[in-house]
Amino acid sequence: MALASIGNSEFDRDTAITPRAPGVTGDGTAEHDVHIHQGWTLFGAANGGYLLATAARALADTLPHPDPFTVTAHYLSATRPGPAVVRSSRAHTRRSLSTGQASLFQTAGDGTEVERLRVLATYGDLDALPEDVRTTAKPPELPPREHCVSRDGLGDGEGFGAAEIVARLDLALDPATAGWATGGPTGPGEMRGWFDFADGRDPDPLSLLLAADALPPTTFDLGVIAWVPTVELTVHVRRRPAPGPLRIAVVTRNLAGGFLEEDAEIWDSADRLVAQSRQLARLLS
Amino acid sequence: MALASIGNSEFDRDTAITPRAPGVTGDGTAEHDVHIHQGWTLFGAANGGYLLATAARALADTLPHPDPFTVTAHYLSATRPGPAVVRSSRAHTRRSLSTGQASLFQTAGDGTEVERLRVLATYGDLDALPEDVRTTAKPPELPPREHCVSRDGLGDGEGFGAAEIVARLDLALDPATAGWATGGPTGPGEMRGWFDFADGRDPDPLSLLLAADALPPTTFDLGVIAWVPTVELTVHVRRRPAPGPLRIAVVTRNLAGGFLEEDAEIWDSADRLVAQSRQLARLLS
Repeated sequence: MALASIGNSEFDRDTAITPRAPGVTGDGTAEHDVHIHQGWTLFGAANGGYLLATAARALADTLPHPDPFTVTAHYLSATRPGPAVVRSSRAHTRRSLSTGQASLFQTAGDGTEVERLRVLATYGDLDALPEDVRTTAKPPELPPREHCVSRDGLGDGEGFGAAEIVARLDLALDPATAGWATGGPTGPGEMRGWFDFADGRDPDPLSLLLAADALPPTTFDLGVIAWVPTVELTVHVRRRPAPGPLRIAVVTRNLAGGFLEEDAEIWDSADRLVAQSRQLARLLS
Repeated sequence: MALASIGNSEFDRDTAITPRAPGVTGDGTAEHDVHIHQGWTLFGAANGGYLLATAARALADTLPHPDPFTVTAHYLSATRPGPAVVRSSRAHTRRSLSTGQASLFQTAGDGTEVERLRVLATYGDLDALPEDVRTTAKPPELPPREHCVSRDGLGDGEGFGAAEIVARLDLALDPATAGWATGGPTGPGEMRGWFDFADGRDPDPLSLLLAADALPPTTFDLGVIAWVPTVELTVHVRRRPAPGPLRIAVVTRNLAGGFLEEDAEIWDSADRLVAQSRQLARLLS
């Protein structure tokens, strides 16, 4: 079987956008039909990173620059599998950056439109950036993939291993952060692992938005097995990822007052830091 | 002289909002007149944290919840001292959280309105949060204030010490991160210091939005003295700060491709992590 490729994969098909005529209008607005697929859900609700990638694809069609540089989504209500529409608009365009916003809507049973998430984002052109790198960040030290905990090892006790989205991915967690699944000890609130698509598609900037929200919640490592819906997720895409597996390290430093942050770094196979993200999530008990 | 207080201070007067009739309309939108004050500028442009606090004050008047929980601003063009208007709207209201957006506009010389920043935010009620704390974060280790570098020691060689906003604040930088001002060595991209208002006002949730963008850029510590305008700034307010000085620690892990992130933690006098922020900034050479 031929491997999937960027543009021809489950992820690309399931984040596809169909512009409604007349495309981007004179005042810089656009509407795109999308379809939220069951395959990217967790406990019945679509994954926040998948939704962000879908909205970001529509925004890329609305803005004059191709790549998300910094993207923030606020999640307003749970998105269910089925049809949806993304309405996007330009806010401001400069030479090398442009800013816009997008909202994803679904139609409720009574026929009213319900907003699911709202996105504010600035786009640019990653390929136009200079090559300078001056960084103190180091990639996470992960065991080789074959020593990590993959889907079969996650079981379905907590429900995560059995979630639809996990079958679309090829995750392999650092055993040091998988104690919640393997019966090992819990930790300080970290989650680390290898990330690939199950169909072999290589990463691109859009898929980094998914990867930022794809590992199990850090609360599992803290021994807190609970639903932690995302309130807000911001991703900075810093570089086009090289082909091959991603490594993701997520850490929570502050679980307090029923809220927690999750900070993620995403590294590519060339040892470059390709994205940083932070989300504010709510701990539902 | 009596010290300033929350509600009666330079910061409060200079972020004051005046609702245009009829206040929040039936469709959840509002307009507020504001005045951008010279005192919060740096090299002629208003500080991003000050602008965020001003827009957030207008949003607090538009949304049903009082406190910013997570606030993101995208900076579209430089804001100059003078009149401005903030237009805000509700997106979605839940029982304990509400989401809205705001834009700050100024009128250009030719009479057209120019958008300066756009904000997307979710508000809640900090005083309604439970007291649980489970955190691994530790406050920054700062020397006592009298051993830190205050405004007089920052000189005006790089322009920062002489900036208008620095006179409104009572900053005291850790000497380990002030080598750029004192002729000491440069570091790995960190900035740490004590933060107070010069007029003695205590911190509140709104002032944390200012504090998140108040220290000199981390690039100074890297030995890179350049203009680093903010593209996007996100602040999570996690707790109402106790009275007394704030401690702020900012770190940059990745300066690459002409962009850098600045991550800040803000701690209050009771050793509680009261805010976390991240910005994406652009290095202009």
